[in-house]
Amino acid sequence: MTSVVVQDSYPDDVAVCYGCGRLNADGLHIQTHWDGREGRATFRPRPFHLAVTGVVYGGLLASLVDCHSVGTAAAARYAADGRRVGSEPVLRYVTGMLQVSYLAPTPIGVPLTLRAWPVEVGERKVVVDCELSADGTVTVTGHTIAVRLRDPAQHP
Amino acid sequence: MTSVVVQDSYPDDVAVCYGCGRLNADGLHIQTHWDGREGRATFRPRPFHLAVTGVVYGGLLASLVDCHSVGTAAAARYAADGRRVGSEPVLRYVTGMLQVSYLAPTPIGVPLTLRAWPVEVGERKVVVDCELSADGTVTVTGHTIAVRLRDPAQHP
Repeated sequence: MTSVVVQDSYPDDVAVCYGCGRLNADGLHIQTHWDGREGRATFRPRPFHLAVTGVVYGGLLASLVDCHSVGTAAAARYAADGRRVGSEPVLRYVTGMLQVSYLAPTPIGVPLTLRAWPVEVGERKVVVDCELSADGTVTVTGHTIAVRLRDPAQHP
Repeated sequence: MTSVVVQDSYPDDVAVCYGCGRLNADGLHIQTHWDGREGRATFRPRPFHLAVTGVVYGGLLASLVDCHSVGTAAAARYAADGRRVGSEPVLRYVTGMLQVSYLAPTPIGVPLTLRAWPVEVGERKVVVDCELSADGTVTVTGHTIAVRLRDPAQHP
C-alpha cells in the first residue's frame, strides 16, 4: 500500500489548523503519512523553535505529537472500517487528552521523525501512541486520546 | 506581596525559549506572574492560532500550559526555600512530562487566562497543576512534572 497524507483528506473548513492545516498560511504544515498500519511524519524545526540553546522547544514537540497522533487516529478509524482515507463520510478527529514525556533533550538542527500507531480504536474515541526521534534516538513519547468531530462541517 | 514575572529571572542563556523567553524575538513571550502562592498568565492568541474555525489550536494551548507551569515550578521552589524569585543560585526548570486535557473548545478572539499552582515541591522535581480559561470558563487543564536544570549555565 502506498502511503497517503491524512491531512490532505480534511475538508476545507477543518483544514485551517495551525499545526497541520494545508490552508493555514502561517502554520507548521505537519503531514501524517499513513501506510495502512502506522503514521509517519518528518519535521524540521525553525531556528527560533528553542527551549534552551541547542534544544527544541517542548511546546513545538507537543504540537507535532498532537497533530500527528490525531491524523493517525483518523486513518486508523478508516482502516478499521475497511475504508480508504478520505472516503465519505469524511472523518476528522480532535484532541481530547495529550500526554507528552520528554525523555531527553531534542537537538535542534536535524530533521525530527515521528511514528504513531493506534492502541485503541473505538467508534468515537481513538487512542494513539507516538514516538519522536532525532538522529535515531527517541527523545519524546506521546499518548493521545483523539475524539471524533460528529460532523466536520458542524464543528466543534 | 506584589507579583513578579518569573521569566524575567531566567539567566540570558536560558531566556531564549520560543514560548516564554524574553530574548526570543520570534517567540510567544508567555509571562508567569507569581504572587507567592500561584502563577497567573494572560495570553491573546493570534488569528492564525486555529484548530478549526473559531477554536484555538491545542498545540498552542499545550505550549501555554507548559511554559506557565514550568515558570510556576521555579517560583514555588524559591518560595519553599524562603527565597526571592531570581535570587542566587538561580533556578531554571524544564518539562519532564506534560499532560493536557481539552475539556471544551477554547474560543479564539478573547484573552486566555491561566492559573497554575504547585501540588508537589521536591528538590529537583516540582509538580504543577494548571487551568486555562476563556470568557470565565475553564476549557483546558494541565498537569506538569518540571525538572530542575542542575546548572542553568550548563544546560541541559
